Amino acid sequence: MNTMFWKTIGICAATLTTFSFVPQIIKIIQTKSSKDLSLITLLQFALGVFLWMIYGIHIKDIIIITANTVTLVTIITLISLYFVYKKP
Amino acid sequence: MNTMFWKTIGICAATLTTFSFVPQIIKIIQTKSSKDLSLITLLQFALGVFLWMIYGIHIKDIIIITANTVTLVTIITLISLYFVYKKP
Repeated sequence: MNTMFWKTIGICAATLTTFSFVPQIIKIIQTKSSKDLSLITLLQFALGVFLWMIYGIHIKDIIIITANTVTLVTIITLISLYFVYKKP
Repeated sequence: MNTMFWKTIGICAATLTTFSFVPQIIKIIQTKSSKDLSLITLLQFALGVFLWMIYGIHIKDIIIITANTVTLVTIITLISLYFVYKKP
């Protein structure tokens, strides 16, 4: 199979994972409920993605930097919404 | 800064993101509730990680293959638990 095919697979993979928290953000806004979400998962993911971003800057890989910066923004948004809609 | 430092950053980043759904799996088992989770997020993430795995096999990168295979297993577990504990 050709290079174009594999490049497309890579781009699809990166796009799907980078924006995967967007439907969760939409759901939390619609339902105004966040109690079933694991805060540890969100914080662990945020820290991991932050380190990926730092690593990407070190190896000067624009794809790793961009994908992880966008993901970090969506996770920080989600963590903020978690606290906004967290019921006592 | 030395290579060892950056290798450690990369390993920490990969470990944190690979196992990020584990606390969510533990929480869903403890609370027996999954209604606030976005199924679209889980399915989108699973498809993205699956494509990353395929891409890793293509470029013969053992790190990409391993990390994404482990993540895929945790997401499939989470999707199964989502349906087990989904209330009507």
